[in-house]
Amino acid sequence: MPVITSRDHPLVKQLIKLEGSAQYRKKTGLTLLDGINLIQIYCSILGKPENLIVSESYYEDADNKHFIDIIFGHKPPKITIISNSLFRAISPVKTPIGILALISIPALKEQAYSRKVVFSVLLEAIQDPGNLGSILRSAAAAGVNNIYLSKHCTDAWSPKTLRAGMGAHFFLHIHENSDLKHIAQQFKGTVIATSIQASKNLFEISLVGPTAFIFGNEGAGLSKEMIQAADENIVIPMPGKTESLNAAAAAAICFFEKVRQERDSILSSNIGTK
Amino acid sequence: MPVITSRDHPLVKQLIKLEGSAQYRKKTGLTLLDGINLIQIYCSILGKPENLIVSESYYEDADNKHFIDIIFGHKPPKITIISNSLFRAISPVKTPIGILALISIPALKEQAYSRKVVFSVLLEAIQDPGNLGSILRSAAAAGVNNIYLSKHCTDAWSPKTLRAGMGAHFFLHIHENSDLKHIAQQFKGTVIATSIQASKNLFEISLVGPTAFIFGNEGAGLSKEMIQAADENIVIPMPGKTESLNAAAAAAICFFEKVRQERDSILSSNIGTK
Repeated sequence: MPVITSRDHPLVKQLIKLEGSAQYRKKTGLTLLDGINLIQIYCSILGKPENLIVSESYYEDADNKHFIDIIFGHKPPKITIISNSLFRAISPVKTPIGILALISIPALKEQAYSRKVVFSVLLEAIQDPGNLGSILRSAAAAGVNNIYLSKHCTDAWSPKTLRAGMGAHFFLHIHENSDLKHIAQQFKGTVIATSIQASKNLFEISLVGPTAFIFGNEGAGLSKEMIQAADENIVIPMPGKTESLNAAAAAAICFFEKVRQERDSILSSNIGTK
Repeated sequence: MPVITSRDHPLVKQLIKLEGSAQYRKKTGLTLLDGINLIQIYCSILGKPENLIVSESYYEDADNKHFIDIIFGHKPPKITIISNSLFRAISPVKTPIGILALISIPALKEQAYSRKVVFSVLLEAIQDPGNLGSILRSAAAAGVNNIYLSKHCTDAWSPKTLRAGMGAHFFLHIHENSDLKHIAQQFKGTVIATSIQASKNLFEISLVGPTAFIFGNEGAGLSKEMIQAADENIVIPMPGKTESLNAAAAAAICFFEKVRQERDSILSSNIGTK
């Protein structure tokens, strides 16, 4: 198979733009999945990607070819091979695995909620793609339905965010450019903001039933506007000598405290009916 | 002040090695703190760093100079200015803030534990510096005393891990190259391993009193040996459609479930004595 070696090849130019530009991703509705795990999760839910891009050395490895066969069977997507040095130039990581999938960003489908518990997350100006991806991953595992991102959040569909999300994107309803204040005001349930100045703590409020958590920017925290839009303001109690948590860690703690309380509530109502 | 512009300058060579080589950091006992927040936390606990390295444009900004004055007062550490392009070449991030501190890695002091609760964390072959730093940050906030790292963990004192730890390193006892099996066997309290195959879950075991958590490699999880060395094997219940969490998110959830249980235990014993 031919190997692309020129930086001027239209596909290479497109891949570089898709890696680097949120605007270009928005305009084209395309993005990149980096690595075989993420590609496999995508395929199991949404089907074949448009194009697989592999490095020369990735394609030469028999194990990798075998893996592609297993995932796609007899009808693989189009495979494009590019030189190793060009692949490194496209990838934002220093030692890329050597496989990318070009995909269309899935459209947001409005679905009737069959889930019992409405569980939403509002994110205001989260800056780090790794944090955003990790928040989405924890949210998907905790059973969150809807994610609302403010205008100033980092791009949910960037290759970096997708990588950190590990497939979570395909299980969530991700609403970009949301008016968070409006969402909070319309939410039928308890809206909970996390802020350092709060007088209540996470462990003393009820998280059973429809709940929305709001998390703010990594440095500045939540805006006053969003703190005021919440029904409850809480802090995570920190008995250690430092009082700061990574945004994704704080979100995970809140999500799974809700998971714990919902389980407890079901367990105690089961005991009550016996 | 003179500006270093040559890549062959001995300090520049040293900084590049300190950024990139765990072996060199071990040999010299030195590492780098990236960014003013981290430097400020270090100073408040351990005093002045050996050397501040700033980029030309950082030094030219009056606000930055003022900030350095506030932190160090009349006796600032030695300040070395290097050209912007050279600073970018040294830094692993694309847009460095422009200030690094050269510090000695603090020696591990054996301290008598005045804290009531012994709380340890054992980490087996954690690979990602960002994950390790975030785990340390959550651990310090949750009141963990001791961190034990297996031989194959990423370097706890790399600039990347330090950056993600946000000062947590200076509040914890970090034991590198530890024999985790031995530590687990000698631990006077409950040793808890997190693994996917576990039959119990995090929310149904008691975490009150001396506790050690073991977390495994991001991809492979815990070794059989460590699963067997634990008193309890637990899973974090995930009601969502995906069943995976980032290692740092999983650790944060476990740490703060212990924080919650300890608080509950104190609250209920207070009620009991009234």
